Amino acid sequence: MAKGNVVVGQSGGPTAVINCSLAGVIETVSASSAMDRVYGMRYAVEGLMEDRLVDLSDKPADFLEKLKRTPSSALGSSRHKIQDPDLPKILKILKKHEIRYFFLIGGNDTMDTIHRVEKYCRQQGYELFGVGIPKTVDNDLFGTDHTPGFPSAARCNILNVLQAGVLARDMQRVDRYVIYQSVGRDAGWLSAAAAAARRDEGEAPHLIYLPEVAFDRERFLADVDSCISRYGWVSIVCGEGLQYGDGTPVSTSETTDKFGNIEFGAMAGTSVALNLHRMIMDRFDFRGEFQITESLIMSAMDRSVDLDRQEAYECGRRAVLLAAEGSSGVMVTIARRSNAPYRVDFQTVALSEVAEKSKPMPREYINPEGNFVTEEFLEYIRPLVGEVPDYATL
Amino acid sequence: MAKGNVVVGQSGGPTAVINCSLAGVIETVSASSAMDRVYGMRYAVEGLMEDRLVDLSDKPADFLEKLKRTPSSALGSSRHKIQDPDLPKILKILKKHEIRYFFLIGGNDTMDTIHRVEKYCRQQGYELFGVGIPKTVDNDLFGTDHTPGFPSAARCNILNVLQAGVLARDMQRVDRYVIYQSVGRDAGWLSAAAAAARRDEGEAPHLIYLPEVAFDRERFLADVDSCISRYGWVSIVCGEGLQYGDGTPVSTSETTDKFGNIEFGAMAGTSVALNLHRMIMDRFDFRGEFQITESLIMSAMDRSVDLDRQEAYECGRRAVLLAAEGSSGVMVTIARRSNAPYRVDFQTVALSEVAEKSKPMPREYINPEGNFVTEEFLEYIRPLVGEVPDYATL
Repeated sequence: MAKGNVVVGQSGGPTAVINCSLAGVIETVSASSAMDRVYGMRYAVEGLMEDRLVDLSDKPADFLEKLKRTPSSALGSSRHKIQDPDLPKILKILKKHEIRYFFLIGGNDTMDTIHRVEKYCRQQGYELFGVGIPKTVDNDLFGTDHTPGFPSAARCNILNVLQAGVLARDMQRVDRYVIYQSVGRDAGWLSAAAAAARRDEGEAPHLIYLPEVAFDRERFLADVDSCISRYGWVSIVCGEGLQYGDGTPVSTSETTDKFGNIEFGAMAGTSVALNLHRMIMDRFDFRGEFQITESLIMSAMDRSVDLDRQEAYECGRRAVLLAAEGSSGVMVTIARRSNAPYRVDFQTVALSEVAEKSKPMPREYINPEGNFVTEEFLEYIRPLVGEVPDYATL
Repeated sequence: MAKGNVVVGQSGGPTAVINCSLAGVIETVSASSAMDRVYGMRYAVEGLMEDRLVDLSDKPADFLEKLKRTPSSALGSSRHKIQDPDLPKILKILKKHEIRYFFLIGGNDTMDTIHRVEKYCRQQGYELFGVGIPKTVDNDLFGTDHTPGFPSAARCNILNVLQAGVLARDMQRVDRYVIYQSVGRDAGWLSAAAAAARRDEGEAPHLIYLPEVAFDRERFLADVDSCISRYGWVSIVCGEGLQYGDGTPVSTSETTDKFGNIEFGAMAGTSVALNLHRMIMDRFDFRGEFQITESLIMSAMDRSVDLDRQEAYECGRRAVLLAAEGSSGVMVTIARRSNAPYRVDFQTVALSEVAEKSKPMPREYINPEGNFVTEEFLEYIRPLVGEVPDYATL
């Protein structure tokens, strides 16, 4: 077979390490005898359909090193969900640029895109090798022990909750509580990770509420009261996607807007952290604060984990090697072999499976009360997030 | 004079480096021939009045090194404003422990406390040397070029705005704006510092709104629209204490609570960032996000600046040396001598002056439009905050 060209894109929400995967693709393509030019899609398949490609083939080594230390998606990203009419447009561009290798770094919607593009091309008699590179801070991708991007975002949550917890402890004569809202709409992995901040009983965080567990206002208020009685203060972590038992988001506004409408969700100008803050203020005579970090933890390169950058790079590299060997229709996965020492293998899973399934926190990672994690979860998370700072106590 | 004992406390909101000042005091006392034991007040003067002192005299060197890397106020802090009836209680404790040297690390309320305690003791014929050690992330202390704690909190804002800005740029096909709310109720120094994140025109942040400038909703919406037209996205930084021209806080709720009351301020469950987010959503068809960091930037030791830790230590050390020489009623100040190379002197200012005055951003540091800083401000801030990361662009 003649040498084919390569296209790579970054899709969905960024991470601190997604450019490491991109660098892994670029550097491995340049060493591959089966592959020629490597193009980057601007804004993922949106840019591909607009023929907005960047030639990445001749980037110098020092640029690639800098790219590995650059957070977010340097090519630009999109959340476009592919539609049937998109497929002929994409095939046309692939043919135009003689592209035979198709890589996207992303989550389950992204894997669905690769799957559909690859299938359509095959049906049209155009040989295309499509391999997925996993990425999501949310860690809810099926088939992999964890996803690149998650460890670094988790570390950012850990440092935030740890340091704000020390402050809350020291300021307990003024403020009694600190509420920290993490991204993670459907899965609680990132909120749960904050538990690794705690070295000793009594330290932050005390309470963690996850989207996997139905939220109960009265139980929450009892938990808060109990921690403040016990420790003098309380550190609370919550996922942005918390829901009540009936499926109502906890971020539903308790107030009406100027037209008298009840509002829902963050886009209506409310949030889980703010509503928890209001619940505590309505019930108790405590002062406290809430923190909403949103994309801050998805792009914190200065808090990224070495292991995460290396694994992200390796997933990019493996994807190219797999495609060069004729593999297609799969996503690279990470399989953990041991915790001490931490060892992983890289394997694959069918794109169709990743596209259809997700990976919520298993119940055995959540305590029976539904307000913290278990020791099993801590064993899972600790090898991924690097060393947790140890502070002096007076 | 016989050797006297020493007491030191940490008062007001913590910083990442306030324990460096504490270590500076402890280590310098141990080398002083005029001073004997050094005690720490638990929760500042609240703990002092309760006779809750910790003997810090014999802490080993490795503990003190760890203390210098520990954020927040290891002794515990308070916001207690001293009252006349407190003064005899304090004198009684000082006499009980033969304390002749009184140090507090804090802001202007704290300096007022030292001033009043020192004056009262003198009136009562009890010789006490009281020296203040400056501290506040807000940087609004009179008489000093900047305050220890400010550079590190400023760097945290810079990294947050920089990294979330890269992400917002890359995600502009999905979200058009990112709003970042910084602490800083009366002074805009910390919000303004975020400007140092920007290396080139078009990068984050685009717009900065400071408490020193009356907020105008229509001008704000025009600014946002103009940036999105020009760049495709916009990064907005706001101080928590923004006010309209008539003095109404921008954090005033635009909705009513369940009893039909209009609400005010963060403690009522609203915030400036949330209200700016609502203004944009009400006017435009843009999606975006808001971030509220609160104490996260006050305690981010992993983002602290070397210079800030060193200056904080030095302020603690100087305070002890001054008191040992018989100085009293003053606060240590930092006077900048040059920017390149960065050089400072340490001087003093009368406590009474610091207690009475504050230091808002001067008008020449704010652009005429009131929506960004000037080059003069950037010259002021850049030497304080360490190197700003340089990322790859595709």
